[in-house]
Amino acid sequence: MIPRYSRPAMTAIWAPENRFRIWFEIEAHATDALAELGVVPKEAAKAIWERGRGKVDPARIDEIEREVKHDVIAFLTNLAEHVGEEARFVHQGMTSSDVLDTCLNVQLCEATDILLEDMDQLLAALKRRAYEYKDVVCMGRSHGIHAEPVTFGLKLATFYAEFKRNRDRLAAAREEIATCAISGAVGTFANIDPRVEAHVAKQLGLTVEPISTQVIPRDRHAMYFATLGVIASSIEHLAIEIRHLQRTEVREAEEYFSPGQKGSSAMPHKRNPVLTENLTGLARLVRGMAIPAMENVALWHERDISHSSVERMIAPDATVTLDFALARLTGVIDKLVVYPDAIEKNLNQLGGLVFSQRVLLALTQAGASREDSYRLVQRNAMQVWEKGANFLDLLKADTDVTAKLSPATLETLFDMGYHTKHVDTIFQRVFGE
Amino acid sequence: MIPRYSRPAMTAIWAPENRFRIWFEIEAHATDALAELGVVPKEAAKAIWERGRGKVDPARIDEIEREVKHDVIAFLTNLAEHVGEEARFVHQGMTSSDVLDTCLNVQLCEATDILLEDMDQLLAALKRRAYEYKDVVCMGRSHGIHAEPVTFGLKLATFYAEFKRNRDRLAAAREEIATCAISGAVGTFANIDPRVEAHVAKQLGLTVEPISTQVIPRDRHAMYFATLGVIASSIEHLAIEIRHLQRTEVREAEEYFSPGQKGSSAMPHKRNPVLTENLTGLARLVRGMAIPAMENVALWHERDISHSSVERMIAPDATVTLDFALARLTGVIDKLVVYPDAIEKNLNQLGGLVFSQRVLLALTQAGASREDSYRLVQRNAMQVWEKGANFLDLLKADTDVTAKLSPATLETLFDMGYHTKHVDTIFQRVFGE
Amino acid sequence: MIPRYSRPAMTAIWAPENRFRIWFEIEAHATDALAELGVVPKEAAKAIWERGRGKVDPARIDEIEREVKHDVIAFLTNLAEHVGEEARFVHQGMTSSDVLDTCLNVQLCEATDILLEDMDQLLAALKRRAYEYKDVVCMGRSHGIHAEPVTFGLKLATFYAEFKRNRDRLAAAREEIATCAISGAVGTFANIDPRVEAHVAKQLGLTVEPISTQVIPRDRHAMYFATLGVIASSIEHLAIEIRHLQRTEVREAEEYFSPGQKGSSAMPHKRNPVLTENLTGLARLVRGMAIPAMENVALWHERDISHSSVERMIAPDATVTLDFALARLTGVIDKLVVYPDAIEKNLNQLGGLVFSQRVLLALTQAGASREDSYRLVQRNAMQVWEKGANFLDLLKADTDVTAKLSPATLETLFDMGYHTKHVDTIFQRVFGE
Amino acid sequence: MIPRYSRPAMTAIWAPENRFRIWFEIEAHATDALAELGVVPKEAAKAIWERGRGKVDPARIDEIEREVKHDVIAFLTNLAEHVGEEARFVHQGMTSSDVLDTCLNVQLCEATDILLEDMDQLLAALKRRAYEYKDVVCMGRSHGIHAEPVTFGLKLATFYAEFKRNRDRLAAAREEIATCAISGAVGTFANIDPRVEAHVAKQLGLTVEPISTQVIPRDRHAMYFATLGVIASSIEHLAIEIRHLQRTEVREAEEYFSPGQKGSSAMPHKRNPVLTENLTGLARLVRGMAIPAMENVALWHERDISHSSVERMIAPDATVTLDFALARLTGVIDKLVVYPDAIEKNLNQLGGLVFSQRVLLALTQAGASREDSYRLVQRNAMQVWEKGANFLDLLKADTDVTAKLSPATLETLFDMGYHTKHVDTIFQRVFGE
Repeated sequence: MIPRYSRPAMTAIWAPENRFRIWFEIEAHATDALAELGVVPKEAAKAIWERGRGKVDPARIDEIEREVKHDVIAFLTNLAEHVGEEARFVHQGMTSSDVLDTCLNVQLCEATDILLEDMDQLLAALKRRAYEYKDVVCMGRSHGIHAEPVTFGLKLATFYAEFKRNRDRLAAAREEIATCAISGAVGTFANIDPRVEAHVAKQLGLTVEPISTQVIPRDRHAMYFATLGVIASSIEHLAIEIRHLQRTEVREAEEYFSPGQKGSSAMPHKRNPVLTENLTGLARLVRGMAIPAMENVALWHERDISHSSVERMIAPDATVTLDFALARLTGVIDKLVVYPDAIEKNLNQLGGLVFSQRVLLALTQAGASREDSYRLVQRNAMQVWEKGANFLDLLKADTDVTAKLSPATLETLFDMGYHTKHVDTIFQRVFGE
Repeated sequence: MIPRYSRPAMTAIWAPENRFRIWFEIEAHATDALAELGVVPKEAAKAIWERGRGKVDPARIDEIEREVKHDVIAFLTNLAEHVGEEARFVHQGMTSSDVLDTCLNVQLCEATDILLEDMDQLLAALKRRAYEYKDVVCMGRSHGIHAEPVTFGLKLATFYAEFKRNRDRLAAAREEIATCAISGAVGTFANIDPRVEAHVAKQLGLTVEPISTQVIPRDRHAMYFATLGVIASSIEHLAIEIRHLQRTEVREAEEYFSPGQKGSSAMPHKRNPVLTENLTGLARLVRGMAIPAMENVALWHERDISHSSVERMIAPDATVTLDFALARLTGVIDKLVVYPDAIEKNLNQLGGLVFSQRVLLALTQAGASREDSYRLVQRNAMQVWEKGANFLDLLKADTDVTAKLSPATLETLFDMGYHTKHVDTIFQRVFGE
Repeated sequence: MIPRYSRPAMTAIWAPENRFRIWFEIEAHATDALAELGVVPKEAAKAIWERGRGKVDPARIDEIEREVKHDVIAFLTNLAEHVGEEARFVHQGMTSSDVLDTCLNVQLCEATDILLEDMDQLLAALKRRAYEYKDVVCMGRSHGIHAEPVTFGLKLATFYAEFKRNRDRLAAAREEIATCAISGAVGTFANIDPRVEAHVAKQLGLTVEPISTQVIPRDRHAMYFATLGVIASSIEHLAIEIRHLQRTEVREAEEYFSPGQKGSSAMPHKRNPVLTENLTGLARLVRGMAIPAMENVALWHERDISHSSVERMIAPDATVTLDFALARLTGVIDKLVVYPDAIEKNLNQLGGLVFSQRVLLALTQAGASREDSYRLVQRNAMQVWEKGANFLDLLKADTDVTAKLSPATLETLFDMGYHTKHVDTIFQRVFGE
Repeated sequence: MIPRYSRPAMTAIWAPENRFRIWFEIEAHATDALAELGVVPKEAAKAIWERGRGKVDPARIDEIEREVKHDVIAFLTNLAEHVGEEARFVHQGMTSSDVLDTCLNVQLCEATDILLEDMDQLLAALKRRAYEYKDVVCMGRSHGIHAEPVTFGLKLATFYAEFKRNRDRLAAAREEIATCAISGAVGTFANIDPRVEAHVAKQLGLTVEPISTQVIPRDRHAMYFATLGVIASSIEHLAIEIRHLQRTEVREAEEYFSPGQKGSSAMPHKRNPVLTENLTGLARLVRGMAIPAMENVALWHERDISHSSVERMIAPDATVTLDFALARLTGVIDKLVVYPDAIEKNLNQLGGLVFSQRVLLALTQAGASREDSYRLVQRNAMQVWEKGANFLDLLKADTDVTAKLSPATLETLFDMGYHTKHVDTIFQRVFGE
């Protein structure tokens, strides 16, 4: 998490102030439930809210922690400095992890809510641009080689569908980690009634963790970060598409280049796809965090704390980086400069070779064997490829071809509309409208 | 995928015979649909089923492929050798990836169905053993250090809940990859009607891929293999728990050791947890495959084929290894030898220190401040730890303690039942019964 | 390790026959040393070589292992079936891992020797082609955008240097794992004299592991596989370069396309860079194996066996795949079809913009401030970029420019030789000749 | 990189102040060389040192960068604000990456120097403690099961040897990245003489990069971070050893527990191995960074900038975290509390079973077949294991055993010194003294 790749709303979730605010709420809600159950005085619960809310001080907690070397105890000590004697009723029967793990999940939920909004904005941008270029025919490429025509809108619709899936995955990942555990030192509720957990969970918008040990099980977090890794990989996918489209020889689209911007300290003419290159790197970072998250699953017995240092780094890093990346990507899509002229020029570059399969099919349907058709098409296609001739002209001049398909028929096969006739169907499938 | 870690039913899914069987079905169903649409003669569709079914020959296809260097063309050529002239109506308007990608997804679905069964058997074993040891109190440990009592059944219930989540994740992962694409060279249906895809999908129990390029998008497969990575991590989790329980100083449980088995060529007394150690390694393997699967997402433009070599290795390797691992783990749980005597011995090892928190709470409730209570408990606890004294005796002899809690009251606090009173509640949450 | 991506010499290293041959040699050499030390009879050592060499039978060993569930014991049992009574002197004071770990390292050394040869061939191909195109000027690209000229030979020399470094790394990695341990059950030599280890090591061309526990420490193997991961990443690097050069809009080079080969079942004109795409995927596989290898380091106490299942998979998989990939890459480079015409066409595509930095420098040296120079260059460059004008013409028409640099001077700046004047120097650095 | 896991000397290397200091030095040294070559005036070079040194201001550079969106241009602009007109001679013929990449390598070298020192301190601590416990016999364990005796000093010597290897690897990794490139926009030295690069390299203690493109090739950095990943794995290895030794049932050693420290907010008796658990997590983090570093290798053509965001995160994160981890680990080893009584108690726990292999060997040497010997030992060993009997007593009472070995002979076999007789030899190998 470095400022260059951070946005404030997401960063704030991981600030000490927010963490201690959530700790306070967990403790205060728990004390409410304990008071309701008659375990602690109702006045104590009231006092905590009244005298403790908004009072805990990160700097003071740090100071205490340096002595006691335990963050929750430091927090409770600082809370007691504000609440006074009633503070002894706080944290009754709870263990540190009840606070820490529930807090982490609250933070992850808050972070995920931002990410879901980011996704919605990216989806909106992709949809808008997809419809804008729905019918702009452009070259489809497999293996980096010209294949058959698609439309520029279809390209963007592909990514819309991919990020729609990612949004669903993210929503599922949020459910994975939206749980609360207030179950005591080894998860047996020995010293605390399960109803306390139920109350805190409800107040925080979480569900109850069915069985916790000292900790909320880490397979949940592994699944969460693995999902972020998949989303990051999709970001890389779209980023690389744009980088390809912007390369000098293709140049069908470009990242928006603001007037004051300098592309290179040495070559002033350069407009580089630096945003999508940057996103490619950020994707690698987020993806790489899936492995430590998975390694965190196998904690020893009822818990060990090896997951903690990992999560202190990757929970902020992964969510902050992904938030930044999604927003940056939305901006790239939103302002992407598309060059229809270049798209058309590239489309016509191969002298009609993109119609080869259609010719192949027509030959087959006209009674040629598949193997013969293939050979007829290939021998003409190879001449286009090697000598730059026009494919249609060659076919018309090939008597083996014209024995099956008349020149007039051949001409009807070279029709771009043939390739785009199902675009509306596909858009209907993708956007449901 | 090596024989040592493979089971035949899963291996068969990845055998050439099964792959070509699925290819045949895709082509034959597609030809049916084409015939229905009037694109090809109905007799051709019939001929393909009648003369082609079960006929394609992996060895012959290999032979052809060595010449044409293209597997689908080799397959079609071999098919034509059986079907005859009508074979030219097969594969009309389709592209190789229509066959390859749909086939991969069929194979992954078949593999996942086995994995789901494996999961069910593991869950059944975990449940059975969890109920068997529901009330056997054993030491709960955090940081590898004795904490407070849990029950051996709770330990197993924790893993039941974890694998239940994994089963749900796996079912979701299956939906991710249960799609079919018959959309042609760049996914535009230029040469094939979308109704062909719908027909094939339905026949194969798949859903239609809303938008494909030449390929089914690889974020789906990334999510699939990432999910297997999480499941592998849970296998490691349970394997490590058992390895800990079996270590000489703990020895609360052991993998079943068959009469003829030899633990060591050098030390005949040894009974090693080799199965769970093996599972720990297998988990690393499956987890490691998540990264290449995620790297596969960012294919170039409408497709490149870099994903293919990755999937040829990891699709069999990950599913075969996970199948083997789940079955092995089920066997380990099913036959796990549990030693209640050792469990009890370990439980009593710390002279009653496991009750320290309860004493702490009682002191607080008797009016001592949290800080004072903590100090009183800790100074006695430290003596137990360092000198091996009995915790209850020390407390009874500490006048600062007895000023708050009488010796009789102290005795009531040292009660194992106190820790197990919510076990039924937790079992109800986990098993829903 | 699948046949499609395997070559026989490397595969043979990992076959059971080779493993048991090495086991036999370890045991036989050790028995020699034991005989020399007077621990066992010299006749026994002789009998082992004479009656045991080449006799052990993988199928029979499998059969025995199914009963005793221990591979080394099964091997020794089978050996005894051939050697007879003297077989009881084999393996004296040794532990299974003495055999297994030393054998693995012998296999890895053998595998590395093949990989080093592969590297040499790749380096030779790169060098030959680099000199062939040493002076063919081509466009250099940063961010995928035309930058300044390089030569095609320099491109290849870059990769020569990279693979030279990789060769050095691989040689270092070989040293890492070229060790032998015959140190007994926990590495103390309690039951075996260290001189036995020294003898076996010498016979097998290994060095003695200074301190082993039961096993040779796995940081060695982690380093080994991490090195393979780096090499794989370089393979990906070169593969992606070629894929870029082959894409339709660039097409400066192509993988060799044999006459019988078919690029697509649908589009007969297609020549796809399938070999380098395949290499991109293979690189992901090998790289992904670095993580499990690193996770293998933290074995418990004097050893656990979790590393074993990982190594049974990745040791063959990583070396076989890398061998195949290096050989395939060598073939690609060796037969790469380079198109000088296309290279030149691309070079001239941007109307002279590649000389922009040289103009910038000349302006600065003619007394303009860096900022002013930058603005003058950029405003003309932008017109070339946007309108396709000729850069030199624009500069000559810009009076602010000509105030500093005369049209004649400007013309001298547009000189390709300016960019290639240090090519020989660089080649000298890289190839040392 | 979070404060909790950072140390100031390492953090300072990655601070903007240090980065800009290095940039300045690169530019100033380059200008010196340019002046020497007569390309720029000597007074300009002098002016830069005199008026620029220590003057550039991170805050001001940030401000400029927000406008020009290019960090090196922002730096040069700020430098010009201090140096004045002569600043136009700075950066002549160079490209941003000349500065950025050379700077990164300088920073990595500085960071590595700290890491090497950290290693030396860790090695010193390991050596000191190894000699301290050289002859303290303790249980060796394979598979977590008691095997045969080792000494506590041997345990530590094992890690000494492992970290010695890691030190060598780190030194090699430093050489990998200790290179300098001042080669211009695409590495051809078109606008700058190679002698400038040679001069800067020499001044900064680097070697010249034989062939750079725009950037220093990233296989170097991949190797660097992969090496850090291996070192991290060794840290995990040692951390897990200590966690095992500290677990309640073993408790042969403990992390030092300071008087004021609190182990648990709930269980005051707890002393948890939190430092080594923390190190286990930190190791996962550093290891996870190897993958993005390897993914950075395959930059497009002469460079793309996708590596940059990765390195901005992992270069500080990996080195800061590893520095912190090594220092923490050194502290753990330095102050490790070892309990010889517990070591001895554990050693004797299995009633003499640790001598089983020696008995096996003696039986073989007394003429029993290996199979018979094994069965005799195992049937007695199993009784010890299952009933807790004394192994020696059982053997003496087994007439099949005593037929081969007299009770007196059996007694001589139960000798701890037998296992430690080669400790000095091993120490000599490891420590060379």
